[in-house]
Amino acid sequence: MYFIGIDLGGTQIKAGVVDEAGKVLAKAETATLAERPYQDVVRDMAACSLKALEEGNLTVDSVGGIGIGIPGIADNVTGRVVFCTNLGWHDIPLRDELNKYLQLPVVIDNDATVAGFAESVCGVSRGLHSSVFLTLGTGVGGGIVIDGKPWTGAHGVASEIGHLTMEVDGIPCTCGKSGCVERYCSATALIRMAGEVCLMHPDCAIMQQAGGDPKKITGRIVMDLAKQGDEFALRIFHRYTKYLAIAINTIISFLDPEMVVLGGGISHTGKFLIDGIVEKIPRYLMFKTMPFPSIALASLGNDAGIIGAAMLGRLGTDYV
Amino acid sequence: MYFIGIDLGGTQIKAGVVDEAGKVLAKAETATLAERPYQDVVRDMAACSLKALEEGNLTVDSVGGIGIGIPGIADNVTGRVVFCTNLGWHDIPLRDELNKYLQLPVVIDNDATVAGFAESVCGVSRGLHSSVFLTLGTGVGGGIVIDGKPWTGAHGVASEIGHLTMEVDGIPCTCGKSGCVERYCSATALIRMAGEVCLMHPDCAIMQQAGGDPKKITGRIVMDLAKQGDEFALRIFHRYTKYLAIAINTIISFLDPEMVVLGGGISHTGKFLIDGIVEKIPRYLMFKTMPFPSIALASLGNDAGIIGAAMLGRLGTDYV
Repeated sequence: MYFIGIDLGGTQIKAGVVDEAGKVLAKAETATLAERPYQDVVRDMAACSLKALEEGNLTVDSVGGIGIGIPGIADNVTGRVVFCTNLGWHDIPLRDELNKYLQLPVVIDNDATVAGFAESVCGVSRGLHSSVFLTLGTGVGGGIVIDGKPWTGAHGVASEIGHLTMEVDGIPCTCGKSGCVERYCSATALIRMAGEVCLMHPDCAIMQQAGGDPKKITGRIVMDLAKQGDEFALRIFHRYTKYLAIAINTIISFLDPEMVVLGGGISHTGKFLIDGIVEKIPRYLMFKTMPFPSIALASLGNDAGIIGAAMLGRLGTDYV
Repeated sequence: MYFIGIDLGGTQIKAGVVDEAGKVLAKAETATLAERPYQDVVRDMAACSLKALEEGNLTVDSVGGIGIGIPGIADNVTGRVVFCTNLGWHDIPLRDELNKYLQLPVVIDNDATVAGFAESVCGVSRGLHSSVFLTLGTGVGGGIVIDGKPWTGAHGVASEIGHLTMEVDGIPCTCGKSGCVERYCSATALIRMAGEVCLMHPDCAIMQQAGGDPKKITGRIVMDLAKQGDEFALRIFHRYTKYLAIAINTIISFLDPEMVVLGGGISHTGKFLIDGIVEKIPRYLMFKTMPFPSIALASLGNDAGIIGAAMLGRLGTDYV
């Protein structure tokens, strides 16, 4: 039996056919064009799925279910998307609309939840009972796996690790609140911190790499310079990884999972990032002599969304 | 079948015989005298248990197991107490020592975890799949119930909600870190906030009720005056419940349980406290139109420790 995984993003729709072990057999993608009516987006989600099946020389008969990862939250009782801010979706009957094209069971969940689940099925946290996944990108997404299954909470709003309060009345957040983890631990936060340094030190290496334009600072520039030992980049790196260590300690003191997995653009910094975080974690531990979760890099890369969605399709709605 | 629940506190040892539904049939207590060798304390735990059995006209044969709640953390594989700071215990073979007097299975867990579990077996969160318990006392303790069972994490250090970071580099905490939830949400924090007001307004009603001595301010004085509409007490109340609303929102955005249960001394403030918190929660919600967990007062009072420990004894060590 195979499963279709759909990774619905703000810019791209990606669909793939995945086997029971999480191996991607074939995939296809197309632009989301989110400004269109949702019916058009869903039609393309179905077309993409069928194209992936065709690529893999497979038919719909061999598919046991469809999973979808969305940048928002869903209700798997009704099969509706509750919110999907990037796409401008609110209360959209995604399952019913997709069933017009593909008569298969559909499970929908948050993209970070889906990517974290993928890692726990066939990635770095494979087979673990409990893990927490953090995507460090434009924002900070979170995915929780408990008892080997995604945990989305009693009302579907769990695992929003990016929107835990890190500073009471801190930096205003895009979500309408203030002081959220996302404002200190996302790539956006790292770039903001670098911008603050460049304002004070316009001749620094970061500014030079950005061609003198603070708007061109990237997470990559800062991380690469920090690896090379640039003084200002290192200061930013240590400030940023301090916040990450505090956020990860919140995960430890709250849930104490077996592993914390880091994904998203910033995770491409690699071992240098992990070392910078792990070195700081003991400062924030409640029980300093007790073991703490291993901190690891996500291993499935861009396919995590497709794989996790397909594995969600395999799981069915029993976990919710 | 009956179960013995032992609530091991810094000042009192309480033991009770509890039936399978969580009803306390008989209990006994004695002073902990924590400065003694641990062997003496454990001997009295056994004596207290036997006295409770005698009170209930029951014999050891009718007991299926013993559960113990401790103000610390334990390892149920080895049956040892890892840390118990109040008692000055470190790596104590509690199960083996107790088995010298009572040859029964022994399960040990954190006292807040145990009290939260009691509420989920036969208290306010009875029968719920997921709940988080907060004790608002000298410190802030946390207990997590997932799938109807206590969740203590992969390394036994979960549910330390009192030691999540609420302010980066905030108020120094007794745990050695800074800015922990406990420094803003405990009775101790409420009293500190009241003390700050009394310093500026030495003629205020709080100071009068405390007989002019800031050291005699209690949580009860502040809460009673706030209920009566005293301006300064109300300001403190709103400051304190704002922090509680933020901490509870962290629980919502992380785990999204069905219910958050408040226990400990401050919870005796009652509905006035719940109303003050619930009114503020929507400000901090990520998804403002979604339902959120109900916030409720613990219902088992001082027996929660005995009941939860006994129910832990009933559960056995399978949950860890």
